[in-house]
Amino acid sequence: MRNCILVLFGLLEVIYFGDCHHDGLGYKPKLAGPALTATAGQPWPKPQLLKNYNQGYVVVRPTLFRFELVGNNCDMIEDALKRYYSIIDGTVVVKAGPVNKARSNSIHKAKPWKNSTNFRGYLDVLNIHLMGPCETYPHEKMDESYEIKIDSPDIPGKGILVATTNWGLLRGLETFSQLLFPTEDFTSLQLRSTLVVDYPRFPFRSVLLDTSRHYLSKKVILQNLDLMAMNKYNVFHWHIVDDQSFPYQSKTFPELSERGAYHPYTHVYTQKDIADIIEYARVRGIRVVPEFDSPGHTLSWGNGQPDLLTACYKDGKPDGTFGPVDPTQETTYDFLKLFFKEISDVFPDKFIHLGGDEVDFSCWKTNPRIAEFMKEQNFTEYAKVEEYYMQQLVNIVQSFPNNNSYLVWQEVIDNNVTVSKDTIVHVWKGNEISYEAELLNVVKQGYRALLSSCCFPGTLADKQLVLGGGPAMWAEYVDSTNLIPRLWPRAAVPAERLWSNANVNNTHEAAPRLEEHRCRLLKRGFQVEPANGPGYCPVSWD
Amino acid sequence: MRNCILVLFGLLEVIYFGDCHHDGLGYKPKLAGPALTATAGQPWPKPQLLKNYNQGYVVVRPTLFRFELVGNNCDMIEDALKRYYSIIDGTVVVKAGPVNKARSNSIHKAKPWKNSTNFRGYLDVLNIHLMGPCETYPHEKMDESYEIKIDSPDIPGKGILVATTNWGLLRGLETFSQLLFPTEDFTSLQLRSTLVVDYPRFPFRSVLLDTSRHYLSKKVILQNLDLMAMNKYNVFHWHIVDDQSFPYQSKTFPELSERGAYHPYTHVYTQKDIADIIEYARVRGIRVVPEFDSPGHTLSWGNGQPDLLTACYKDGKPDGTFGPVDPTQETTYDFLKLFFKEISDVFPDKFIHLGGDEVDFSCWKTNPRIAEFMKEQNFTEYAKVEEYYMQQLVNIVQSFPNNNSYLVWQEVIDNNVTVSKDTIVHVWKGNEISYEAELLNVVKQGYRALLSSCCFPGTLADKQLVLGGGPAMWAEYVDSTNLIPRLWPRAAVPAERLWSNANVNNTHEAAPRLEEHRCRLLKRGFQVEPANGPGYCPVSWD
Repeated sequence: MRNCILVLFGLLEVIYFGDCHHDGLGYKPKLAGPALTATAGQPWPKPQLLKNYNQGYVVVRPTLFRFELVGNNCDMIEDALKRYYSIIDGTVVVKAGPVNKARSNSIHKAKPWKNSTNFRGYLDVLNIHLMGPCETYPHEKMDESYEIKIDSPDIPGKGILVATTNWGLLRGLETFSQLLFPTEDFTSLQLRSTLVVDYPRFPFRSVLLDTSRHYLSKKVILQNLDLMAMNKYNVFHWHIVDDQSFPYQSKTFPELSERGAYHPYTHVYTQKDIADIIEYARVRGIRVVPEFDSPGHTLSWGNGQPDLLTACYKDGKPDGTFGPVDPTQETTYDFLKLFFKEISDVFPDKFIHLGGDEVDFSCWKTNPRIAEFMKEQNFTEYAKVEEYYMQQLVNIVQSFPNNNSYLVWQEVIDNNVTVSKDTIVHVWKGNEISYEAELLNVVKQGYRALLSSCCFPGTLADKQLVLGGGPAMWAEYVDSTNLIPRLWPRAAVPAERLWSNANVNNTHEAAPRLEEHRCRLLKRGFQVEPANGPGYCPVSWD
Repeated sequence: MRNCILVLFGLLEVIYFGDCHHDGLGYKPKLAGPALTATAGQPWPKPQLLKNYNQGYVVVRPTLFRFELVGNNCDMIEDALKRYYSIIDGTVVVKAGPVNKARSNSIHKAKPWKNSTNFRGYLDVLNIHLMGPCETYPHEKMDESYEIKIDSPDIPGKGILVATTNWGLLRGLETFSQLLFPTEDFTSLQLRSTLVVDYPRFPFRSVLLDTSRHYLSKKVILQNLDLMAMNKYNVFHWHIVDDQSFPYQSKTFPELSERGAYHPYTHVYTQKDIADIIEYARVRGIRVVPEFDSPGHTLSWGNGQPDLLTACYKDGKPDGTFGPVDPTQETTYDFLKLFFKEISDVFPDKFIHLGGDEVDFSCWKTNPRIAEFMKEQNFTEYAKVEEYYMQQLVNIVQSFPNNNSYLVWQEVIDNNVTVSKDTIVHVWKGNEISYEAELLNVVKQGYRALLSSCCFPGTLADKQLVLGGGPAMWAEYVDSTNLIPRLWPRAAVPAERLWSNANVNNTHEAAPRLEEHRCRLLKRGFQVEPANGPGYCPVSWD
């Protein structure tokens, strides 16, 4: 599953470096200075509709500015207002003083704002109008639409953010914060007379983090959730365990992490850690979908649950290595019932990702118990063993009171395993052409599909059954030291493809907005690396 | 010049991923746990000679341990002892408590040390013996050799570090700190009965940082100097200015940075910054060789020194763009004399890197003044214009009282520019075969050579005229956010090729040592990324 992020990087190079692939040679600037000039006050991802009513702008003085609730309210909204007030307050550029001529000309074209005829007054209040009741936990069908009006003809000089749900309000607050940019004298913020009408193209917009190949600290996971919210992602796909380590600290089976984590105390997620992460995500409108991948990718499970895995045989006896989960034993399903019941209770999301990728039949082929089982069941193909296992697992998950839904990786379908029609199939491998074929294959069979790959094939991606997708940050060479600079602002690019209109695909138009967005995230305190070749942000990382 | 770091990454993949290129697919572990097990107490780069006298070890209790000077002394040594005492004190692993079985078995094979028959007592003192006087500033011919004996037959149970110069002592202290590793109970450090006899393979071992494409904070430059010292690099090659920006704040020509830096206050190096960086490097035995590349790569110089560059012509008149420095004007050389005199005074190193790479003749070809000049001088080739310029510049630099020596990039030689025989030529481009040809070409003409590329061709590299080389971190996509995790531990790999014996080239032997080294640097507080696939360090980042 490792090629996803590499493929993803292919896409990003196109976005980052323009139309053609950058070969690292031959970049010869014609003039001194940055490779390009950042936009000012342009949101990322681009809203479905953003128009300026006129040439005018209002000015926000952070010390005098406030939000005013005119509709429903709840704790989550109060928290969000506090959070966005801090962001807005911090957006005033800290560096005053003269700037060099080139910079002054290129970035700050506006005349001192107070004297401009386009100055339409001060915006001291943004009205926040939540029309519906507050929902508690983000979900597959949540409404994330919102509308912003600043100095519109019907409310001249004033501003309002309207949404049906608290989820829409969260997205709108993020956009509002991104519309602001410093006045030329750096004392305040300006905001163009603007209408924004916005909603997502796809309902499922995920970032996958892998916490098994390397452990990621809680701190860096929370930072990543902040960055996801600032890019309108709404699903944290937590690939929490895998072959290498089992950092999930189970209440029911504590030995899984005691023996399967890299370290039983320092390299685990306690129940408290997990609850904190889920809550931090929830109030940002982000679902946490845990992935407990089986029957393959489970070597670390075997340390703490000794009879779970298939023993591989050589010369008529076990050779000391292990393969996928042993699907022939009742004890396997006894374990899975209790374990997934716990997962279903710990994670409030309706979805669990059940994995199912890269099931290697070679170990099963050596094990006499598997052979016997296949004979009993009249199976002639190993894919049938996989199907048997997946079907049992799906039955277990579906039996839980909160009626869990589930996702699986594409191999489950590739191996002709029959699963219920409400399964969501996660496509991840192949080249551009085979993604399209794979997606088509999945959708034709009536399954809903997600795509974690480089491209969203044109027409197909807009079919109702394609729910979305997102980047997958596999962690063979990634841990807390480099997650943020490696993933960001790269992951901003698929964020825009997932949120914005299908026609937002012009890399020349995107690059200066991405430059502004990267500097925005840097200013908010995130260690995000350069996006667009030589240049600088007003505020540097130290 | 941008392909160097890419080529460098090619080498590192070989080192990091084993014999063959890792294609990002198909990695299937046979057992749970890390991809490999780190060594314990193995230094990086590998010393020329390291042997254990026997199976014994002594134990260092950081709270009781001290250095004792038995030879000469100076401030630089006192500072180094303080620095290394802190490192040693911090090397005791902070995490006590039980570890899981797999980890305990794989990493800590030793029995509790107090009961072992191999326990040879406590090492409470390391004698530090500087035989010669302290030298002030590190230089091309400095002696970096040293010897360490721990529990040797002639001083059983005791330890000594001996060196002829303070530079050798610095290298030896680093190695000593790396020989230490935690006892199984994590209360103290152990140290095998060891002889180390060590000296570098090449005298010039550099890391290039580019502070023009992106600005690097002083803080991150100092961190990089720490990491260089911990990897026995001895030259900071500071590619300080280039086309994009001019962050060097000149005393003589303040307009260069006022108009040529990305920002005249926040994105510059003041004289104080530079002095601090030089001093920080000096006490770590690292030379600072500044590069002011000309006549190409100088667009940003033109902002603050308007008549310096060649105006490019189109349709008989200047088109508003500029080419290399205009070599036809007396004012050019008046400027260069004053400017490089300042550089020669500010940077104590005998060497200045004069650049000379990628001189693009296309602008010169359009300019009528250049045509006229060539006619006057009877030049028929543009390379002769370049030669004229370089020779003037070299004459200027050589005329300074502290007798500056200089380096140039390979193009100066490629273009058949004749320069004095004491020029050092810096080779950087081509593939593996053409590096060898280029090096041979340079050395045949009697010049000394440096190599900043992926490989050190076998026999040729050991010729007397090849002084060394090192990685070049071009900064098109690198700034303070990602310099450290992108460069480290990658740059540790060429560090070993430059310091250790030519026969230290076994990637299987190197990988577990690199794993230990990466965890060591992480523990010392540096944001160095994973080196070897899935795994973990005892102490995580964050």
